[in-house]
Amino acid sequence: MKESLDFIYKEQKELSTFSGIGALLGWDQMTYMPTKGVAERSDQISLISRLAHEKFTSEKLYTHVKKLTEKSNLEKLNEKDTAVVVRLEKDIEKARKVPSEFVEKMSKTTTLAYPAWEEAREKSQFSLFAPHLEKIVELEKEYCEFIDLPGPSYNSLLDDYEEGITVEKLRREFDYLKPQLIHLLERITSSDIYKKQKEINRKFEVGKQKEICHLIIKQMNLPKERSRLDVSTHPFTTSMGNDDVRITTNFDRKSPLFSFFSTVHEGGHALYELGLPRSEFKDTVISDAPSLGLHESQSRFWENMIARNKHFWRYFYPIFEKISPEQLKDVNVDSWYRYVNQVAPSCIRIEADELTYCLHVILRFELELALIDGKINISDLPNVWNEKMTEMLGITPKNDREGVLQDMHWSGGSFGYFPTYAIGTIYASQLFKKLSEENPNIYNEIEQGNFVNILAWLREHVHKHGRLMNAEELIKNTCDEGLNSKVFVGYLKDKYYPLYDV
Amino acid sequence: MKESLDFIYKEQKELSTFSGIGALLGWDQMTYMPTKGVAERSDQISLISRLAHEKFTSEKLYTHVKKLTEKSNLEKLNEKDTAVVVRLEKDIEKARKVPSEFVEKMSKTTTLAYPAWEEAREKSQFSLFAPHLEKIVELEKEYCEFIDLPGPSYNSLLDDYEEGITVEKLRREFDYLKPQLIHLLERITSSDIYKKQKEINRKFEVGKQKEICHLIIKQMNLPKERSRLDVSTHPFTTSMGNDDVRITTNFDRKSPLFSFFSTVHEGGHALYELGLPRSEFKDTVISDAPSLGLHESQSRFWENMIARNKHFWRYFYPIFEKISPEQLKDVNVDSWYRYVNQVAPSCIRIEADELTYCLHVILRFELELALIDGKINISDLPNVWNEKMTEMLGITPKNDREGVLQDMHWSGGSFGYFPTYAIGTIYASQLFKKLSEENPNIYNEIEQGNFVNILAWLREHVHKHGRLMNAEELIKNTCDEGLNSKVFVGYLKDKYYPLYDV
Repeated sequence: MKESLDFIYKEQKELSTFSGIGALLGWDQMTYMPTKGVAERSDQISLISRLAHEKFTSEKLYTHVKKLTEKSNLEKLNEKDTAVVVRLEKDIEKARKVPSEFVEKMSKTTTLAYPAWEEAREKSQFSLFAPHLEKIVELEKEYCEFIDLPGPSYNSLLDDYEEGITVEKLRREFDYLKPQLIHLLERITSSDIYKKQKEINRKFEVGKQKEICHLIIKQMNLPKERSRLDVSTHPFTTSMGNDDVRITTNFDRKSPLFSFFSTVHEGGHALYELGLPRSEFKDTVISDAPSLGLHESQSRFWENMIARNKHFWRYFYPIFEKISPEQLKDVNVDSWYRYVNQVAPSCIRIEADELTYCLHVILRFELELALIDGKINISDLPNVWNEKMTEMLGITPKNDREGVLQDMHWSGGSFGYFPTYAIGTIYASQLFKKLSEENPNIYNEIEQGNFVNILAWLREHVHKHGRLMNAEELIKNTCDEGLNSKVFVGYLKDKYYPLYDV
Repeated sequence: MKESLDFIYKEQKELSTFSGIGALLGWDQMTYMPTKGVAERSDQISLISRLAHEKFTSEKLYTHVKKLTEKSNLEKLNEKDTAVVVRLEKDIEKARKVPSEFVEKMSKTTTLAYPAWEEAREKSQFSLFAPHLEKIVELEKEYCEFIDLPGPSYNSLLDDYEEGITVEKLRREFDYLKPQLIHLLERITSSDIYKKQKEINRKFEVGKQKEICHLIIKQMNLPKERSRLDVSTHPFTTSMGNDDVRITTNFDRKSPLFSFFSTVHEGGHALYELGLPRSEFKDTVISDAPSLGLHESQSRFWENMIARNKHFWRYFYPIFEKISPEQLKDVNVDSWYRYVNQVAPSCIRIEADELTYCLHVILRFELELALIDGKINISDLPNVWNEKMTEMLGITPKNDREGVLQDMHWSGGSFGYFPTYAIGTIYASQLFKKLSEENPNIYNEIEQGNFVNILAWLREHVHKHGRLMNAEELIKNTCDEGLNSKVFVGYLKDKYYPLYDV
């Protein structure tokens, strides 16, 4: 048993080393790599992925794990080893369900699909991407057969990103959330304030944007010696290890506050990564987030509940004003707070406001489900997409680029991923509600730019648990109930009713 | 045979992929990595090194190579495969001479020695480093026994960096070079011009230094899509692959032109890496430099023969002046040319001028040889160092930090490395002489900032051959003779006599 334990910890350590190497290869490709380096980089990433996958699914590791999970052995393990061994067995058995020929086939298909999607999007011509998507959907179905969870096929896709969440649960939540959001949106868009609202177009110099972004992550207590902020086309967070977590932003987007809010968003992801269990669980399967939704709850929490909060701007507006007085000379803290919370239905998900964002997600969930169940054809997708947009948001994409072709997820075979954005948004509101109940002084702290207690609370209630339980169990433990969109809708009403005087 | 050939190419491809990954891990550590990432980074680098070493010395690869080098099989191979197979056999057999326990032991010893050296240097206290150096020298001797080349033990160390070069050859060159350099230095330091020369202390803004550095590498035809320039404490060049070669510099050094000359120097290394054989020899043991000396010849060539050339400044001085007029208002192209070629004996090798540089190298060569032969004791090292400095350069280090502790090489176990700096410097002068004979228009081209023909000539005579022959054979093919310090001394006289009117 000692031998098996030593072996599984050694292997997990190496897997986590591979994962850090892979993260650096990916990060560099998105930030600094010279353009022509891409072919060799792709070989490097493939090699590391293959070695890690071989190690994870190896007969030897599996044999040792199975030995440890034999009843007579498992009984003798301490709490920590039990948690690791049980989790590891589950992960490995799932990974071993999928034949490596399938992994290869999926990888080849998506490698071709990605540039086809890029071109299709560029030309706004869905037909260029359709045959690739057709193949991918077929592979997704095949994948569901390998995983074979109870209930609808789509459950097997969801499980990769959000263990424990099922189509049934999501339907229940979204059946409530969707009409509520549509109703709320209609109330707002018929308000006088909405009708009179204008865009505040500001252009902040890149140097000033940088200054503001570095200031806010410092204030969020992102440790400089364990993190950094760089530039990439699409913002992201990645971990080279427990002590090296990096975020990116983009200073050249149209929206004047894109870099600020995306930095706060990625900063939330980074704080989670930096707070994952160390000491005893370091370099084990436990030291990770249990789901993408929970990860997203952390980024949304900081982006929406904190950085779009009225109290936050009482603290941060004067700082903004000091750094960039020219840009803010005809606004004030109140009009600015209104501005950063403007509701403005957009065809593009990543440009959506806090209120309409989840409608974009629900649309995608409905379409993915229908595709996997074979209820719609690929060729009908653009029209169904546009109809749903009109139905939910009251606007219609001008073309496929603004519609069905906007996201890269499908080209990479990431079906079941989108719902985690909504789950995270809902979890964030539940966590914020609980935190404000437990610490009524929270608004004062936010107004003073003091986030120490907030971070400590998240560390205690979310970060430190890693994957010791699944995301919904963790939320239940902290918020006394699982996923609940009613809380989110309540939060939205409390915020947007006064903003639009409805 | 087909199977063996396929296998050895597949393995070399993977080895080259590992090498690119290792290069990125190292580059990132020196440029962007957050400080606390170092422990995990060291695990990542170790893992990649171990996997690559295991692959390279594996029984399976060796068996396939040995099969191909059987006389009956070798005869059937084409020229390209023959070159690869023969080179590979030689490399593998050398690597397999060294037991992995020894590699482990050396790695552990140097891992401890490096921080000890850093502390010793910081405190200028040799005794802190001495016990580590003692162990390293013992291990170096042991290593020589494994490699066991004919002649003095030190030949086995030289061979790692400069295949084909022996103590005998080096002695012959240095026995000529050393008194020549000392004599030349004495003539210069007794000249009137030398006695009157002043330092021109300029401080160029970092932004302007950057502009100038990016300008010069563009002019040197370093392709932007295959290379980049970043910042690190010590400048270096590294390759993530044939299409991703990166250089670094440092804008905060005391010397106002440090970033400029180090960028040109590393740019020379990078052009070589970018010009190594592709197509048929890509991802084989042939697509590499045959020696560090030849690599250094490329960096020295650009740094000294080009960027310290009078004709170069006729072209580049006006550019410098335009970018930074304030700093250059009381100088002109002639005084500037004199300034960048000032002879000024210094205790520090990396601050040495072109004339005295090789004396620093010869000093180290003499000491390394004596250490490996057991002719001096570690404890005598600081004194012997200082005596030699006084003898050769006429100056005496104030302390060990300025003396025996200045270089990190020994702490990493790099014995036999220093001579390659002098070899490269000599080769550079030989190549430059040949180039100017073959293209008498060269000075015109330099004066126009046109380096296209120069680069093409280096590509043709140096870069494209990779490791098809050793460095001295390559130089012989191009310059009609092997390593010859007389050419270097001739070059120095032609340059420095007029500069100092001696």
